[in-house]
Amino acid sequence: MSAHDTTPADPLFAATPAYGRLHRLQSRLHRLNHLVSIAHWDQAAMMPAGGHAARSAALAELQTQIHREGIAPEVGHWLAQAADEPLDDWQRANWREIDLQWRRARALPDALVERRSQLASACEHAWRQQRPANDWQGFVQQFKPLLAVVREEAALLSDHLGLSPYDTQLQQFEPGARSQDIARVFDEVRTWLPGLIQAARERQAAEPVPVAPQGPFPVAAQQALGLDVVRWLGFDLDAGRLDVSTHPFTGGVPEDVRLTTRYREDECLQALMGTIHETGHGRYEQHRPRAWLDQPVSRARSMAIHESQSLFFEMQLAGHPGFAAQLAPRLQAALGAQPAFEAGNLHRLLTRVQPGFIRVEADEMTYPAHILLRFDIEQALLAGQAEVEDIPALWDAGMQTLLGLDTRGNYRDGPMQDVHWPAGLLGYFPCYSLGAMYAAQWMATLRREQPEVEARIAAGDLAPVMDWLRDRVWSQGSRWSTDVLSQRISGETLNPAHFRAHLTRRYLS
Amino acid sequence: MSAHDTTPADPLFAATPAYGRLHRLQSRLHRLNHLVSIAHWDQAAMMPAGGHAARSAALAELQTQIHREGIAPEVGHWLAQAADEPLDDWQRANWREIDLQWRRARALPDALVERRSQLASACEHAWRQQRPANDWQGFVQQFKPLLAVVREEAALLSDHLGLSPYDTQLQQFEPGARSQDIARVFDEVRTWLPGLIQAARERQAAEPVPVAPQGPFPVAAQQALGLDVVRWLGFDLDAGRLDVSTHPFTGGVPEDVRLTTRYREDECLQALMGTIHETGHGRYEQHRPRAWLDQPVSRARSMAIHESQSLFFEMQLAGHPGFAAQLAPRLQAALGAQPAFEAGNLHRLLTRVQPGFIRVEADEMTYPAHILLRFDIEQALLAGQAEVEDIPALWDAGMQTLLGLDTRGNYRDGPMQDVHWPAGLLGYFPCYSLGAMYAAQWMATLRREQPEVEARIAAGDLAPVMDWLRDRVWSQGSRWSTDVLSQRISGETLNPAHFRAHLTRRYLS
Repeated sequence: MSAHDTTPADPLFAATPAYGRLHRLQSRLHRLNHLVSIAHWDQAAMMPAGGHAARSAALAELQTQIHREGIAPEVGHWLAQAADEPLDDWQRANWREIDLQWRRARALPDALVERRSQLASACEHAWRQQRPANDWQGFVQQFKPLLAVVREEAALLSDHLGLSPYDTQLQQFEPGARSQDIARVFDEVRTWLPGLIQAARERQAAEPVPVAPQGPFPVAAQQALGLDVVRWLGFDLDAGRLDVSTHPFTGGVPEDVRLTTRYREDECLQALMGTIHETGHGRYEQHRPRAWLDQPVSRARSMAIHESQSLFFEMQLAGHPGFAAQLAPRLQAALGAQPAFEAGNLHRLLTRVQPGFIRVEADEMTYPAHILLRFDIEQALLAGQAEVEDIPALWDAGMQTLLGLDTRGNYRDGPMQDVHWPAGLLGYFPCYSLGAMYAAQWMATLRREQPEVEARIAAGDLAPVMDWLRDRVWSQGSRWSTDVLSQRISGETLNPAHFRAHLTRRYLS
Repeated sequence: MSAHDTTPADPLFAATPAYGRLHRLQSRLHRLNHLVSIAHWDQAAMMPAGGHAARSAALAELQTQIHREGIAPEVGHWLAQAADEPLDDWQRANWREIDLQWRRARALPDALVERRSQLASACEHAWRQQRPANDWQGFVQQFKPLLAVVREEAALLSDHLGLSPYDTQLQQFEPGARSQDIARVFDEVRTWLPGLIQAARERQAAEPVPVAPQGPFPVAAQQALGLDVVRWLGFDLDAGRLDVSTHPFTGGVPEDVRLTTRYREDECLQALMGTIHETGHGRYEQHRPRAWLDQPVSRARSMAIHESQSLFFEMQLAGHPGFAAQLAPRLQAALGAQPAFEAGNLHRLLTRVQPGFIRVEADEMTYPAHILLRFDIEQALLAGQAEVEDIPALWDAGMQTLLGLDTRGNYRDGPMQDVHWPAGLLGYFPCYSLGAMYAAQWMATLRREQPEVEARIAAGDLAPVMDWLRDRVWSQGSRWSTDVLSQRISGETLNPAHFRAHLTRRYLS
């Protein structure tokens, strides 16, 4: 058997021996997960295509091992015993997180975990070629077996956890969340979003069109700009990196956070905004509670809270006129001065409302439309109300209704644009819009508590913002449930009125 | 328990069930070792300094797991049973390799393996700062506990395997080798090397001094040149990469081989020769027997044979006048034409005999002196005849005798120059000079069998050389012992006369 069941009781845990064993097992799994994370990052950012099969097999082997150790029979006994041990508050919260992941994991046979891992690797790998080729038929072939195993997992978890199949997937990313609550929030957004988009567009149409940046922008210069900006935003490059991947993400481990972005020579703002977005994730990871880094309680609370940080950086901060004024000279220094990089123009570029095909390039006003669409389709797929072949028609109908765009035949910029589905991650998308709403809620709170904060941002002083985020969000890890955390941060649970108020204030006041 | 003991017998191994279980266990360990290799590469080529502690702990965790599974009690039973099963020749050779690694591993307690891994990580990490600072005292503090654990391991292995302590370390890299045999070979080299160096230098002194390349050489241009050259030498960049590390090495996995080199803006040939050297390693790894890739029998035979490939590329090929004529236009295209890059001058630069402090920058004539020196010191350290504090005096005495150089106080370019000792790898160095001797022996054989090969090289046609190496060396994996492999390649076991003849022919004829 693995090391954790034969080791003697740790004197640090003399009064809480069962909890101590859980703690040590988690610490071991944290170390093993470190290697999984680095190999995943490498796969996306460094690995040549020929390395794919061997890498997938290696990752599946270790992930299955981690799964197996996490649900070993003694873990259930330790959890039961530890529940009666004298735990302090952080230990109690850690116990709750371990218990939660154990209840989920023990429902899943090793073979299913391994099969899911391998099918997701294969689908994601194939998608990297299929997307640029607009090869929908090829994608369907890879995605159908992956969806089948995801449905199989969802059915098993549904039985064990008493959740709907969709909610079993959603709760991987947002523990405790229910799709019916999210649907209620999103349905309200549906009522006012198209009107708000139209009003903002009419208003912007009456203003001069912002000057577009003129390329080419050498990749080396954009990379230097990216490093300058992540440093300015407080990301610690001694404990992290910034690299390139097809789909930007934040990976690695809290002690060594790996940000990625992607560059085009003819455009420079998408890469920069992507970098700023990932820096929000990166700072959250770098500031998780250090004393608990090897334990589940130190993890980021949820993906909605994670996205509340990335979108705070990308939308709340980078869309702020004072921030644009600080960013402008950095852009000019790295890429040369040009009219597009004048502060006022830059701000107009960064807040331009314009329906488009691509989620990650969307402005904050049209962004929720991309999420509503995906949320509907994911739910239908998990409920068995739609099949993979139905996606294009659903996609097109949604994009017509929400953004007035015709997407027929354009799979590449339609349902194949994101890595989530090919990677087997259904249930993630809602977290983006929940995150944008939380971000608006945090900013409203911060402005209320520190009325001078906008002047500080405009003066280039980000310290009050960063200190507040560190204190309220990053340092809390998973100490509280999402609802309690939200109340502690802002005095209330999720209140989407702040998001609507933010959009109205920024775009229509 | 881990997967391998409860799995049902594999129908592929119906007649050889015990061997089948060994095969499946090795396949699993191959997959886990994949993650270790990639994380090691990342640590040397990508990881920021702040990631060190977490990485070391993660690597130690998985390496200890791999060690533990490899010596589980049932493995000994399977080995014993499989010895009587009807194995084919490759399976028999695979059994022999598994048995060999098992005999070694089972002598080592988990705790020792973990301690060694962590001390080596700590020492190597500290050395990265200490070397540029010439901080010998700091290095001594880190290296002493590492040497202590290496000695402890060597003593345990010595008891179990009936080898001298030094030979237990040597045989990690060169299975079956005995230091007394190597000493006999090296002692003979000692008798003629200084005289040959002197004669070559006198002869070169009578010729015009080659023109040195004039920098600066932008790193991006050198990287493009490196990629061009590795491609030309047949390295598959769809199954590998070329990056930068402090100490050049070849890492990764056979399906995804990671070469590294290092660049200086004021000099361009060291990086290029380093790249050519690592490409020799890389091609060996990329052409290991594919059907056996997850089994020990597919591994490269030994580090002397590995170095025989890197040094074949670096010394036999790159030192060949016909090769320099092919390399010259590539250098000119990448870095601009200049007198130094004229073919004849380039050849003289690449074959310049000049005693120097740094092993990896040494020409092939003075190179063995660096190895003789290290071999003597390593043996004294493992035999307890010298302590870490004695190294500088031993180093200086050796460099005075062998190369006439005064190294006092220059630890950075003296005993601290190589990564091997800080990484806990004692016993590796002899493999370099054995490799150079084997490389000369292979070239003598190839010339004998294919008299036209030198004309083919000069015509830029490397196919005959590469095909021969693939057929005789790379595709053989660990099918044979080093001695049998050498006989199959060249008709004889190691015969250092070929090395001496090569040097005499190239430098004095």
